[in-house]
Amino acid sequence: MKNFVIGVDVGGTSVKLGIVNALGNVVSRSSFATEEFMGTPEALITAIANAVLVLLQGAKPSAKDVAGIGVGLPGLIDVENGVVRILPNIPGWLDVPFKKILERKLNIPVQIENDVNMITIGEWQYGAGKGIENLICITLGTGVGAGLVLNNNIYRGPGFAAGEIGHVPLEIDGPKCGCGGWGCFERYAGHKSLQKQAAKVFKDKSITLEEVYRRAGEGKKKAIKFWDETGVLVGIGLVGVVNILNPQCIIIGGGVARSFEFLQPSIKRTIDRRAMKTQASMVEIIKARLGDDAGLIGAKVLICHEK
Amino acid sequence: MKNFVIGVDVGGTSVKLGIVNALGNVVSRSSFATEEFMGTPEALITAIANAVLVLLQGAKPSAKDVAGIGVGLPGLIDVENGVVRILPNIPGWLDVPFKKILERKLNIPVQIENDVNMITIGEWQYGAGKGIENLICITLGTGVGAGLVLNNNIYRGPGFAAGEIGHVPLEIDGPKCGCGGWGCFERYAGHKSLQKQAAKVFKDKSITLEEVYRRAGEGKKKAIKFWDETGVLVGIGLVGVVNILNPQCIIIGGGVARSFEFLQPSIKRTIDRRAMKTQASMVEIIKARLGDDAGLIGAKVLICHEK
Repeated sequence: MKNFVIGVDVGGTSVKLGIVNALGNVVSRSSFATEEFMGTPEALITAIANAVLVLLQGAKPSAKDVAGIGVGLPGLIDVENGVVRILPNIPGWLDVPFKKILERKLNIPVQIENDVNMITIGEWQYGAGKGIENLICITLGTGVGAGLVLNNNIYRGPGFAAGEIGHVPLEIDGPKCGCGGWGCFERYAGHKSLQKQAAKVFKDKSITLEEVYRRAGEGKKKAIKFWDETGVLVGIGLVGVVNILNPQCIIIGGGVARSFEFLQPSIKRTIDRRAMKTQASMVEIIKARLGDDAGLIGAKVLICHEK
Repeated sequence: MKNFVIGVDVGGTSVKLGIVNALGNVVSRSSFATEEFMGTPEALITAIANAVLVLLQGAKPSAKDVAGIGVGLPGLIDVENGVVRILPNIPGWLDVPFKKILERKLNIPVQIENDVNMITIGEWQYGAGKGIENLICITLGTGVGAGLVLNNNIYRGPGFAAGEIGHVPLEIDGPKCGCGGWGCFERYAGHKSLQKQAAKVFKDKSITLEEVYRRAGEGKKKAIKFWDETGVLVGIGLVGVVNILNPQCIIIGGGVARSFEFLQPSIKRTIDRRAMKTQASMVEIIKARLGDDAGLIGAKVLICHEK
């Protein structure tokens, strides 16, 4: 019985791998630094293939127990053809037939997916979004992204480019964004902007968001206020998508979401104030539950074609 | 053979009715003023029932040729239960079991739908959106609304409230909106705001948008510039939804869209400049094709459950 799936989560700094069992639990894991294999797509795919083989050597389930490999990648992924269109933060990736190459190396079926969609699928089927047919899963980190589950299906858009909530403009003449636009949500609530804001608020250039989180946990008012104000910004960034898509819940994940307890009240309050009554009254703001495993567990769903 | 459908389009000023044939053509029509029957929901539904009977008396297809009646209403419509939840601009409508009441009066199957969704369905199946699986149909008028076709299905949202693109905020501290929010798209590109802007630009308090349209048609530069700048605003209002939903096309309908030829270039230019590359390169901005008949023709699709 092919009861196991291998999940691979490719990030800018590390590649994480995990064997996921039929219950959606990660039973074995490994990781390696992305940097060493950034030279060519072929080098990274070979490194992934080797890591899979090592993982299967040491683990109880062997290759014959594995139904498939699901790989989440940070970029534009043509899910139907298994081709990586572009990875904005890893140079040299353009129209790479990832699925074909990895399948040839390992002789195991491969599915590839955008990393945020993978996390969304994981949270939807095994995490905070279980049983919910319409949800948005946002990741607050260096980038601000989102996966959309609409009518009980992941919605990718015809160009596999849907979900770019970080690039919804919040101001007509806002600050310039790396995407080419102005005033993008990410320019207000992305990690970099929040860090700058924290440096200003705490008059300390080297303060980290982790430190601000720690201080909030200790009950420091200034830190609590910082997260409260961040939540207002996140809330404003969500009003548009709440009014357009009328989701039942918004799952908050990513690094910044560690401060969820301090963010949630002001996110919800802002949506209640600024979004339309029907939409605002229906939407719950909840915390992602699977942490770093979401992408690995999403792979299980992708391979097993569960709804 | 039940080859005909009756479409009913309920607006704040008039109720339009039409008999639609199997090809999606309106073969017979009538209308009456909404105002006279605004007293109670029952009064308006009775008036609609009577108008249907009159329409069928005079027309070739009789009641036995009619597969059903599709009614578009300007508000929050529970499509599954056939209940009008609320009509914001017609007082006294709250949880009205419209479908049940009209079916009892006429003994013909009835489906009800939000008016903008009805227009969207019509344009998608018989108009500008034919054959397109992912599109947004926006109506630029007193209100700014939208219908969403995603993965070849109309997307209504779990509370039937999706598509409220007019209430996407374009500014964090924008002008207060009737919906309770601030800086809503509608406050920039709705009929009322555009009329105010026109009065300012042309230094004429009584100038109408129709007049500005006429002047643009005559090649008057100031009028052309007015529509060009309006197109920039509309474009900015669309950037967010283009980045989030990655639609193949945006259909522009409603009264303001009469000036489509003057609006389109700057809408497209603004999206090209400010939206993400993949999304911007895929999306076409096209003009609604069915005019006032869109809602009636949408009724045909709704009743015949065509995809």
